[in-house]
Amino acid sequence: MKKMLVVYFLLIGAFLVYVFQYYAKDPQAGIWKEEGLHGEIGENYVMVTFQSGLEYWKSCLKGFEDAGDALNVSVEYRGATQYDVREQITVLEQIIAKKPAGIAVSSIDPYALTPTIDRAAEAGIPVVLFDSGAPGSKAYSLLATNNYNAGAAAAEKMAQLAGRQGEVAVITLPGQQNHQDRVRGFRETIKNNYPAMKVVAVADGKGDSMASKNVTLSIMKAHPKLAGVFVTEATGGIGVGEAAKSIKRSVPLQIISFDTNKGTLDMIKEGTIAATLAQGTWNMGYWSLQYLFHLHHGLTIPAPSKIGDVSPLPVQVDTGVSVVTKDNVENYYAK
Amino acid sequence: MKKMLVVYFLLIGAFLVYVFQYYAKDPQAGIWKEEGLHGEIGENYVMVTFQSGLEYWKSCLKGFEDAGDALNVSVEYRGATQYDVREQITVLEQIIAKKPAGIAVSSIDPYALTPTIDRAAEAGIPVVLFDSGAPGSKAYSLLATNNYNAGAAAAEKMAQLAGRQGEVAVITLPGQQNHQDRVRGFRETIKNNYPAMKVVAVADGKGDSMASKNVTLSIMKAHPKLAGVFVTEATGGIGVGEAAKSIKRSVPLQIISFDTNKGTLDMIKEGTIAATLAQGTWNMGYWSLQYLFHLHHGLTIPAPSKIGDVSPLPVQVDTGVSVVTKDNVENYYAK
Repeated sequence: MKKMLVVYFLLIGAFLVYVFQYYAKDPQAGIWKEEGLHGEIGENYVMVTFQSGLEYWKSCLKGFEDAGDALNVSVEYRGATQYDVREQITVLEQIIAKKPAGIAVSSIDPYALTPTIDRAAEAGIPVVLFDSGAPGSKAYSLLATNNYNAGAAAAEKMAQLAGRQGEVAVITLPGQQNHQDRVRGFRETIKNNYPAMKVVAVADGKGDSMASKNVTLSIMKAHPKLAGVFVTEATGGIGVGEAAKSIKRSVPLQIISFDTNKGTLDMIKEGTIAATLAQGTWNMGYWSLQYLFHLHHGLTIPAPSKIGDVSPLPVQVDTGVSVVTKDNVENYYAK
Repeated sequence: MKKMLVVYFLLIGAFLVYVFQYYAKDPQAGIWKEEGLHGEIGENYVMVTFQSGLEYWKSCLKGFEDAGDALNVSVEYRGATQYDVREQITVLEQIIAKKPAGIAVSSIDPYALTPTIDRAAEAGIPVVLFDSGAPGSKAYSLLATNNYNAGAAAAEKMAQLAGRQGEVAVITLPGQQNHQDRVRGFRETIKNNYPAMKVVAVADGKGDSMASKNVTLSIMKAHPKLAGVFVTEATGGIGVGEAAKSIKRSVPLQIISFDTNKGTLDMIKEGTIAATLAQGTWNMGYWSLQYLFHLHHGLTIPAPSKIGDVSPLPVQVDTGVSVVTKDNVENYYAK
């Protein structure tokens, strides 16, 4: 009789264990239905860049990793070490062969990667693009800075710094689309919103600090009352800063640069550069992974396989820019 | 002795129950760490529209609800029943008073709602905008159709339908920004990509089917070889369809309309309208809730409260358009 009781209680205990284990493992069926969005064991997503050692990618990857943590999936970082189209294609092909749950690519070239991206899509591996796109490809979305809007934001900040009046100049890289868009956004915003301001020069800084310094000095000579310079990339920005430092003026030159490398942040701290535009890199990475996760789990509607010509996800995401000045520059140094 | 055994086993059973309940409730501490993103009990998000009975909102709300299900939070639908600025402000004020976890607003007017939206933001209630924006407000993001891109998509489809040549016309609402953007995207794409095509007329359809029918008939008379018409809104699209039906031609008029109300879908089914553009309404609703959830739980980086001038979320999301034709029209009827 006593032995029977032991057996009964062991059975009851085992049953209770089973019941609670069941609820814990499958909350859909149970009383603790609060599971939310999460991945499965072995679910792996890959981020692919070029010049993969660049500081610029760190915050993209941080966003990608943070989304991985939030969704309980694993992430991996790969990339071409050089600025080399062939190398990025090879890296992408190696990744496709491993069949990950999804791939986020920053494309080194708008066309060269398209066949490889399409092969991934045809193999059922979702691809999204971040930072720079491949417009004709089968990637589902592009998460990047809208460069026209970024140029417009620079113009608004310039107007504020210059008291809504005066002559301003732009130093840029004329050959590249993203830089052209920044210039266009800047020029059109000044023209449409600030009648007392004028863009008096748009010059080629060649992405080089010495060339940017020299061309800035020429413009300052031709326009002694120059109120400000918007420079569309960071290396040239240092040169513009050096030009401003080399000339004594009663009114300081207002310089707005782009991106947040250490040299730029240091010049903001010392007051040479007034502001720079930080791109929404964390958001590019974070929402890239969210999009891939939703594609992998079929959480988009309408389902991409069911309807032709359909966008299962937002097709283009402007991750925006933030204005960095002396007031908040400390937050942008790499931690 | 026997009674003691009973007590022992009850205690062991109770302990086992406690242990499993603990693991089930707080997976962070336990072996089943796979919780993912999910909300808390009582976490409630509100979608606010105007003309709240419109069929157009149904898919926005479905996306909002689907995200609510995915994240285990509750959602609520509210709105001004009429096309009435004051009514939408009143509804929004009532919602703010209840302190929900977040509010997604489709703003009836780009300016009138701004003070109310800002009051919500200042009260710590995150707001995002979908479908139509309020550019100067403190809302974190706008999830909507990029109308320029939508017009460009219409141009690409028109080029395909018309064999990349011929005269085309546009029927639109000249006073409204979103319609102007659609026209601009259409015209510029035709001009830049299709040298053998020409936009010969852009006319006011007054958002009315009779007016749109009449103006289309005039254009068809003036341009007997007219290959196609792009009409930027659905009511006018019906009128353009009626105009095409009333005239016998050797080559059919290619009509591309906008949105997916029943009348438009029926005309696609019968072959009068060749295609229409469906907006990414589900995505507007789905990602609005995702964004609000991330703001409410402080999952955005950098934290909005810590850094000034920062975009904690992508600032603008183009939810895209899908091309609806006879091949996939059945999928777009309301279910």
